[in-house]
Amino acid sequence: MTTILAPATPHGKGALAILRISGPDAISIVDSVWKGKSLADVLSHTVHLGCIADESGNILDQAVATVFRGPKSFTGEDSVELSLHGSPWIVREVTNLLLRKGARGAEPGEFSRRAYMNGRMDLASAEGVADLIASSSKAAHRLAIQQTRGAFSKEFNQLRDKLIELVSLLELELVFSEEDVEFADRSKLMETAQILLTKIDRLTNSYAAGRAFKEGVPVVIAGIPNVGKSTLLNALLQDEKAIVSDIPGTTRDIIEDTCEIDGVLFRFIDTAGLRDSADIVESIGIDRARQRLTKASIVLWLIDPLSPIAEQTDELQKAITDLIDHQKIIPVITKANSKEVSEEAILAVETALSTLLNNKPHVADILKISAKEEVGIEDLCEALKKASTTDYDPEKELLLTNARHYGDLLRAGNALRQAISQMQAGASADFIAMDIREATTALSSLTGAITTPDLLNSIFQNFCIGK
Amino acid sequence: MTTILAPATPHGKGALAILRISGPDAISIVDSVWKGKSLADVLSHTVHLGCIADESGNILDQAVATVFRGPKSFTGEDSVELSLHGSPWIVREVTNLLLRKGARGAEPGEFSRRAYMNGRMDLASAEGVADLIASSSKAAHRLAIQQTRGAFSKEFNQLRDKLIELVSLLELELVFSEEDVEFADRSKLMETAQILLTKIDRLTNSYAAGRAFKEGVPVVIAGIPNVGKSTLLNALLQDEKAIVSDIPGTTRDIIEDTCEIDGVLFRFIDTAGLRDSADIVESIGIDRARQRLTKASIVLWLIDPLSPIAEQTDELQKAITDLIDHQKIIPVITKANSKEVSEEAILAVETALSTLLNNKPHVADILKISAKEEVGIEDLCEALKKASTTDYDPEKELLLTNARHYGDLLRAGNALRQAISQMQAGASADFIAMDIREATTALSSLTGAITTPDLLNSIFQNFCIGK
Repeated sequence: MTTILAPATPHGKGALAILRISGPDAISIVDSVWKGKSLADVLSHTVHLGCIADESGNILDQAVATVFRGPKSFTGEDSVELSLHGSPWIVREVTNLLLRKGARGAEPGEFSRRAYMNGRMDLASAEGVADLIASSSKAAHRLAIQQTRGAFSKEFNQLRDKLIELVSLLELELVFSEEDVEFADRSKLMETAQILLTKIDRLTNSYAAGRAFKEGVPVVIAGIPNVGKSTLLNALLQDEKAIVSDIPGTTRDIIEDTCEIDGVLFRFIDTAGLRDSADIVESIGIDRARQRLTKASIVLWLIDPLSPIAEQTDELQKAITDLIDHQKIIPVITKANSKEVSEEAILAVETALSTLLNNKPHVADILKISAKEEVGIEDLCEALKKASTTDYDPEKELLLTNARHYGDLLRAGNALRQAISQMQAGASADFIAMDIREATTALSSLTGAITTPDLLNSIFQNFCIGK
Repeated sequence: MTTILAPATPHGKGALAILRISGPDAISIVDSVWKGKSLADVLSHTVHLGCIADESGNILDQAVATVFRGPKSFTGEDSVELSLHGSPWIVREVTNLLLRKGARGAEPGEFSRRAYMNGRMDLASAEGVADLIASSSKAAHRLAIQQTRGAFSKEFNQLRDKLIELVSLLELELVFSEEDVEFADRSKLMETAQILLTKIDRLTNSYAAGRAFKEGVPVVIAGIPNVGKSTLLNALLQDEKAIVSDIPGTTRDIIEDTCEIDGVLFRFIDTAGLRDSADIVESIGIDRARQRLTKASIVLWLIDPLSPIAEQTDELQKAITDLIDHQKIIPVITKANSKEVSEEAILAVETALSTLLNNKPHVADILKISAKEEVGIEDLCEALKKASTTDYDPEKELLLTNARHYGDLLRAGNALRQAISQMQAGASADFIAMDIREATTALSSLTGAITTPDLLNSIFQNFCIGK
C-alpha cells in the first residue's frame, strides 16, 4: 500500500491550510522533513509544533502535526495532518517536498476509499460525506448527515437481512424438495415479502422528494412575455431570508438560481415568455420553457392585469392540461400594487381565473404581488413552502438522494415484485428463490457488500481531492 | 477577556474546514455543543472525535476537536480547533451556533494580536506571519519566515540594547554633571555610535531590495510603439519556468503581471510605446510610461530592426539620461529571427547601439530575441536574474520588507546621525543623550516594546480573519 498525500482545505490564502498524509510510511515521511520531536515516538491523537525543512535545511514553514495511528484513524492507516500557514506557495512547496520523500498525490476521494476498504466506513456513509460537503440547505444537510452516520446502511442492511432469511427458508425447501414439504408457509412468506416491498417502494419513491431537498425544489416561473417573471425572480433572490448562489454552466436563455427559504432549498427557473410565435429563435426558447414546465415540482404562473387576459388564461389552461399529478401550480397576479392597475382589472382577472382553476386539486390559492415594491413576497414564500411539502418528511424518515441507491432499490423492488407474482401464481420454490436472490444482490451492491473496482471508481472519482 | 471565533481556512467546498476558538470560555463553549468525551477533561494538545449538535439536538457535523490549553497555545489562551467537513453551509451553521453559545466573531488578526499581547510572539514576528501567508516566491517566503522566526526582532533588540547602553553612560555623566567628568569616552562612544549607524543604514537601505523580493522586482518593458513589447510579455509569462498570477486592479493602459523565475519574483510592466505624440490621449499614456520608467529596477529596452533606428536610439538616449544609479537597462533587439530582418539590419542596429551604450556601467549586454518563436527567452531570463541581484543577499543577511519597520529605522538612523554630529561638535552629554533616546524610542516602537492601540489596529487589521 502506498502513502498518499493531498491538501484537505480549499485552495487560496487563509490563516491555515491542512495537508493530509495517509499510509504505512505517513509518519516516517513526515519525520524525514520534520524539525521537532520525532513523530515516530508520539502517542496517537496528539499534536506537535515543529518546523518543516527541505533537503538543504531551509525552513519552509512552522507547522502543527497531528498524528493518528491506524487502525483508529479516518482511513484506518497511520496518518498525519499538517496544519500549515495558509499560503498557496507554502502548500505547494511542502507538497512537492513530501512527494520527493516518497508520498504519492492522492486521487479524488482516495482517503474515503481507503476508509471504506479498511472497514472504517460503509459505502453509503462514504457517499454521504460527499453529499455533506455539497449540502447547501438545512434539509439537504439533514439527509446527508443521516447518511454519513449510517442510517441508510442500517436500513438497507435490515432489508437485505430479511430477504436473505426469506431466501434461506426457500432454499431449505429445495434441499428437501424430494419430500415435497413446504417449510415456508406461502401466505406468511407473501406477507413478509409484501411488507418488505412496501418499504422498498416507499424508499424508491422518496427519491424525487430527496433530490428536491438536495438540489433544490425546482420552481418554474412561467407566463406570457413581459408579465414580470424576471422582476419576481430578482425579488425572491434579493429577499433577506434568501441565500443566493449561482449555478455555473446554466444556459443563458434559462436562468437558474437557488435560494434557501426557511431551511428548504428552492431552485428557481426563469423561462422565456410562453406564446405562439412565428419567430424561429423565440420558438426554440418557448419550446425549452414548455419542457422545463414538465420537470418542475412547482409552477409559479404569472398573470399581468395589463396584458391580454384571454391569451394568458389560454396558455394557463394548456399548462394545467399538461401538468402531471405531483406537480403544483401557484397562480400569481403581478403588478397588483401598480397605479396603472385598477381594482376592477384585478377583479376581472380573478373571475376569469376562478372559473378556469375551479376544482383543480393541484392548484393553490391565487396570490397578488407587486414584485418591484416587494409586496406579497412573504405570502408567496409561504405558498412555496406549503407547495413544496410532500408526504415525505426528512425529519421522520429516510429519503433517497443518490441515483445509485435509487437504481439498486428499483432493481430490488422489481425483483421482489416478480417474486410475489410467482408466489401468487403458485410457482415452485426455486423460481421464487431466484427472484428474491436477485433482490438480495441488488441490495448487496447498494451497501457495498458486493462491489467492483469500476463501481468504486465511479463513486469516489466525484469526491474532492483530500477527502 | 472575551472568547473569539473564526474560520481559519479559505471559504469554499473542500475536504476539511477549520474553526478556531480562543479565550477563557473556549473549551466550555465547545463542550456545550459537543457530543463526545468532555473536552474539559482531556489533556492539552490532544484530538478527539465527536459530534456537534444544535440546541434541538440536531447533529450539525461529525468533527475532530483539538484542545490547546493556555499558556502553551498559539494565542496563549485556552483554544479549540474544530476540524469540520468542508461545507460552507456547515461552517456557517456551526459558527452561528457557537456565537449563540457566547463566542464573539474575531476581528482580522485578532488571534495573532492576542498571541502578541500574551507574549507568545513579538510584533515583528507577528507581522512576518501576514507576509508569510502572502508570500508567493522563494525569496519572499525566505524573508517572511526569517521574520516570523524572530530574526528581525533579535536584530532590532540588539541595536536597541546597544543604544540604551550608550544613553545610560551619557545619563550617568549628567547625574554627576557638577563634577564635570566624562564617564563616556567620546571617541569610543562615537566609534560605537558609528558602527550602530552603519548597521541601521544598511538595514534601512535594504528596504528597496527587500520590497523587490517581496512584491517582485519591477521590470518595465519599454520602446517606441510596435516593437513587440506585449509579445515579449506574453512569451515571458507563458514560459514554463514562469508561474503567472494576475494582479487585480491594475489599470488597463499599464499591464502588470508577476512571475517567478528561478525563485525570484519579477513584476513585469508593459507600457505604452514611447514617442513624441501630438495626440492628447496617447501623450497621457506616454507620460505614464515615462513615470513608470523612473520606478523600475530593470528596464527592458526593445529595439525593432524594422522600425526607424534613429528614433529608437534617440528615445533610448533620453531614457538612459533619465535613469538613476541603481536602475539597470537591458537592450533587446526584437524580431531577430524574422525572415524580413536581414543580418545587415541587425548589424546596423548593433553598431548604432554600441556607440550609444559605450561606457554606461548600468547597461547590460545587447540581447537578440524573437519572442513569437520563443528564441532567446532563456538568455533574457538569465540577464534578468543577473540584473536583479543587488549587494543585498537574503541568504546571508536580513532585508527589510515592511514599511513600518523602514519608517522607524529611518527615524532611528537620523536621530543617531544627529547624535554623532553633536558629538563631533563637542556638544554636552544632555544634547547627545536626547538624540540617542529618540533613536531608542524609534526602535522600541519597532519591536513593540512601546505600542499604542492605534498602531496595533493598523498592524493587525491587514491580517486575514482567523489568523
